[in-house]
Amino acid sequence: MEQIFKGIGASRGLVAARAFVYKLESYVPAQAQVEQPDLEVERFQTAIRQAQAELEQIRDITERRLGSDKAEIFEGHLMILEDPDLIDVIIEKVKEESVNAEYALYVTSRSFIDMLSQMDDEYLRERAADVRDVCNRIMNNLRGKQQADLSAISEECIVIAEDLTPSDTAKLNLDYVKGFVTEIGSRTSHSAIMARSLGIPAIVGAGAELSRIETGTMIVMDATEGVLRANPSTEELIEFGEKKIRYDQRQAEFAKWVNRSSVSSDGHSVELAANIGKLEDVQKALDNGAEAIGLFRTEFLYMGRSKLPTEDEQFNSYKYVLEKMNGKPVVIRTLDIGGDKELPYLNLPKESNPFLGQRALRFCLDRPDIFRTQLRALLRASRYGNLKIMFPMIAVLSELHAAKQLLEEEKRKLEAEGVELAERIEVGMMIEVPSAAISADLFAKEVDFFSIGTNDLIQYTMAADRMNETVSYLYQPCHPSILRLIRMVIEAGRKEGKWVGMCGEMAGDETAIPLLLGLGLHEFSMSASSILPARELIGHLSRKEWSSLADEAMALKTQEEIIAFVRNHKQGGQNA
Amino acid sequence: MEQIFKGIGASRGLVAARAFVYKLESYVPAQAQVEQPDLEVERFQTAIRQAQAELEQIRDITERRLGSDKAEIFEGHLMILEDPDLIDVIIEKVKEESVNAEYALYVTSRSFIDMLSQMDDEYLRERAADVRDVCNRIMNNLRGKQQADLSAISEECIVIAEDLTPSDTAKLNLDYVKGFVTEIGSRTSHSAIMARSLGIPAIVGAGAELSRIETGTMIVMDATEGVLRANPSTEELIEFGEKKIRYDQRQAEFAKWVNRSSVSSDGHSVELAANIGKLEDVQKALDNGAEAIGLFRTEFLYMGRSKLPTEDEQFNSYKYVLEKMNGKPVVIRTLDIGGDKELPYLNLPKESNPFLGQRALRFCLDRPDIFRTQLRALLRASRYGNLKIMFPMIAVLSELHAAKQLLEEEKRKLEAEGVELAERIEVGMMIEVPSAAISADLFAKEVDFFSIGTNDLIQYTMAADRMNETVSYLYQPCHPSILRLIRMVIEAGRKEGKWVGMCGEMAGDETAIPLLLGLGLHEFSMSASSILPARELIGHLSRKEWSSLADEAMALKTQEEIIAFVRNHKQGGQNA
Repeated sequence: MEQIFKGIGASRGLVAARAFVYKLESYVPAQAQVEQPDLEVERFQTAIRQAQAELEQIRDITERRLGSDKAEIFEGHLMILEDPDLIDVIIEKVKEESVNAEYALYVTSRSFIDMLSQMDDEYLRERAADVRDVCNRIMNNLRGKQQADLSAISEECIVIAEDLTPSDTAKLNLDYVKGFVTEIGSRTSHSAIMARSLGIPAIVGAGAELSRIETGTMIVMDATEGVLRANPSTEELIEFGEKKIRYDQRQAEFAKWVNRSSVSSDGHSVELAANIGKLEDVQKALDNGAEAIGLFRTEFLYMGRSKLPTEDEQFNSYKYVLEKMNGKPVVIRTLDIGGDKELPYLNLPKESNPFLGQRALRFCLDRPDIFRTQLRALLRASRYGNLKIMFPMIAVLSELHAAKQLLEEEKRKLEAEGVELAERIEVGMMIEVPSAAISADLFAKEVDFFSIGTNDLIQYTMAADRMNETVSYLYQPCHPSILRLIRMVIEAGRKEGKWVGMCGEMAGDETAIPLLLGLGLHEFSMSASSILPARELIGHLSRKEWSSLADEAMALKTQEEIIAFVRNHKQGGQNA
Repeated sequence: MEQIFKGIGASRGLVAARAFVYKLESYVPAQAQVEQPDLEVERFQTAIRQAQAELEQIRDITERRLGSDKAEIFEGHLMILEDPDLIDVIIEKVKEESVNAEYALYVTSRSFIDMLSQMDDEYLRERAADVRDVCNRIMNNLRGKQQADLSAISEECIVIAEDLTPSDTAKLNLDYVKGFVTEIGSRTSHSAIMARSLGIPAIVGAGAELSRIETGTMIVMDATEGVLRANPSTEELIEFGEKKIRYDQRQAEFAKWVNRSSVSSDGHSVELAANIGKLEDVQKALDNGAEAIGLFRTEFLYMGRSKLPTEDEQFNSYKYVLEKMNGKPVVIRTLDIGGDKELPYLNLPKESNPFLGQRALRFCLDRPDIFRTQLRALLRASRYGNLKIMFPMIAVLSELHAAKQLLEEEKRKLEAEGVELAERIEVGMMIEVPSAAISADLFAKEVDFFSIGTNDLIQYTMAADRMNETVSYLYQPCHPSILRLIRMVIEAGRKEGKWVGMCGEMAGDETAIPLLLGLGLHEFSMSASSILPARELIGHLSRKEWSSLADEAMALKTQEEIIAFVRNHKQGGQNA
């Protein structure tokens, strides 16, 4: 039976494939007495053998595809299957207490994991997650449930999940995974950003109903419109095919804009840049005609590993991007962890409101050892291209001063060591905390540029977690309050002769672009896949006209009115 | 040996008493084999008997002091001590596995609590907390540790704790508890607000070192300066005594201001109001010369109970406050739960960033059933005094429209039922979300008044959780960004002829008051204990002079500069 789901189109594209349902269950088995403990032990040992076969297969696939170092983690999992402190204890519990294997597994693994989690030794603490993974696998086998394993996907599919963490997304093999759909999330949740960065179609926030879809179900998804159909009819499939042809044609038209510059219809130039999060993204940025990297998120260097990256590792990554961009500007943002991005190996204390906690520059100023290493790597890489360093999450001047001071100190040290640096390195800051926007005039005197991070700026200005479904109605990029803040920032930059960019999702939004052009934004940094549509759009807009239209729009009271106003006039402008 | 601790003076006062250390430990015992399981069982049973004796004593004290309904909870605790599903299982585990009692208790209680927590039945789920309490008590007895129990305090003391939750604070018997000191927290954390509301001296954020203090240690605390001494020398005690005499004299001087009006030295009148959170607070507000209730937090009606309050219960509370205030204005804020305030009986989903989640009006609009009940109770109470209704956490106009719509509907219904209402009820909103401050001009046309909630406004504008120690340096009420927002709001109100008040902590801050007076704030609502010092201060300030001084101050770049500026000129003004 056909089912339709609607969500938020997080990354454009049309795709048809079978569903792969990825589900993490927290299952608490009931305790039951068994008549024949020996048979129960046998059942448990069968589940172990099955887990062993599965893990060997995953290990081999991973080794072929990603190399032997990535496969090592599964060697570790296999060893857990032979750990007498875990496995023998479970077997004895079944025998002595005549309880069901599920219960014995649950109770024993739980206290084993608790014990590991409390250890002083970092390595042992990390093993807790592995033990949990393996025990989940055994539990699923006992219950006759299929183990969902993202890294083991080896057939074309659309992944369906409640949500995907950054590490989940990193596991996706794009040879097979053609798109994904999640129950929760918004345009700015990490899974959405990752999807645009990977360039695969994605729908997020499709709702809890999504859990009714089963692995193997045929799916067609139009991520441009945020619509998903399960078990489509033949007519639906034909209609979908036609739509896909039209979509592909339109994509081909955008390609004509790759080597053009970004100029409005009345000759006003802006810069269209790409946001990147991994080294592979640079090529995609260039392929999509990026004139710069407007935001290089350096978190990937720190995530998905067991210890901090060295200065040389970082230096090589920064140098790679700078050289690859061949003199085009590259804005590198210093480490932004905390919030929803964790580094398990740092064992940071859990916060009640991580988005309002010690994240990004706040963390770096608290851990100058970690920060200085990054600054040195950046400085050393500076001579290989056009580097601009950007500090995130600044709220007050003292934070900017402290960060600049550390940068200056490392610069002097390197110079004393005789290391060659670029003659001039621009230093700027993100505007993402409301305080920084409101006091942008005070900051403008002390930086070379601003980049407005709208995802966080909106989140804080509206006091609404951008990952929280229940308040997603408050994610309003075109709300008067947000537009006023943006205008203040652009104005503050203009008065001091500093350029102002934007690296939030809003910069690639086709409704926001006319307003931002009108307000005088200099640089628009977005997902690579949005650049060509944005360039085409800007080519059809008059800067002068939108300058006064933006003023008119900002006299309106609600985002709805403003969006309607823009759509109405954009249409007019393009037809004219 | 004398030890000095410094923290944040959260509620003024000087007090000397012995320490009562309140500590919640999460203790994970190691598994150990015992030679003689029978002796181990005996040890466990002794711990049980001890717990029984303790609980009977607490039950009796509670019954005497708070009545038999409050004592019932300890009857429940006593029954847990006889539950064979818990106690017998532990004893058998010790016997059969020859393990130590601590370990058997830990593992068994843990899975028992887990099981209860997963139940569909609400009553059983709530029992999990009781089982945890009781098992902690047994564990402490096994380990020979003193059980800290706030409600059982029956000697004069100063409570020392890592932190105190609202329910902890509610348990304090003020006949005995003379003050408290916490390791974490800021001026705006709940423990701090509760302390001011209870009128007992408190120091918060005194740091982890505080855990070195033991129960029984002699303590002198100067909560006005945020300084605590453990084991003071004789000289220290004498000096403290003299300080206390001076402090008491100064307090007596403030008393002269009780019946005066709040007028600046150049004849400009303002209103000094009290923030209240419980019915008992009204008398304290009047005793301290409050001219109004500027914020009545209605959460207390919903918290610390097992189900929602009825319309009549609420009506009676509102009526009580309105009558007691005898025609003076009473601003009642509609329910503000979520954030750090939970109502367990509603089983709301856990949020990753509750301060950015579905709290306050957002929750009420999602649950109009709950909201309408409160609105009806408010409307019905309106004819007993000067009621003003205030909506919290508004970010966008549509939220205000929705709230006003529901209010209007309930009003019509009551009128149709023939219920007599006040002729005019002012309807206003909190300004605590940055968006509302930035767009205050749009809101000003549609409300009767604004009240600026600085605690949250600062938290969101700085993107810094006000309960999180590591970012407490960003709680900057006098930062240019905050002052600019406040100016915008006052200006927006002035243009539309609407009064603007403030009900955050800042309204009672002696450094902020001159600036707020200068900016033209109409109403200052604060803890009752701050009113008289504020009235005295305002009496010495010239509105006209501070109007231009505020402009000068706001040309400065940092809070430090602004505070220094104010202190400097306040001194000058008072001497002149």
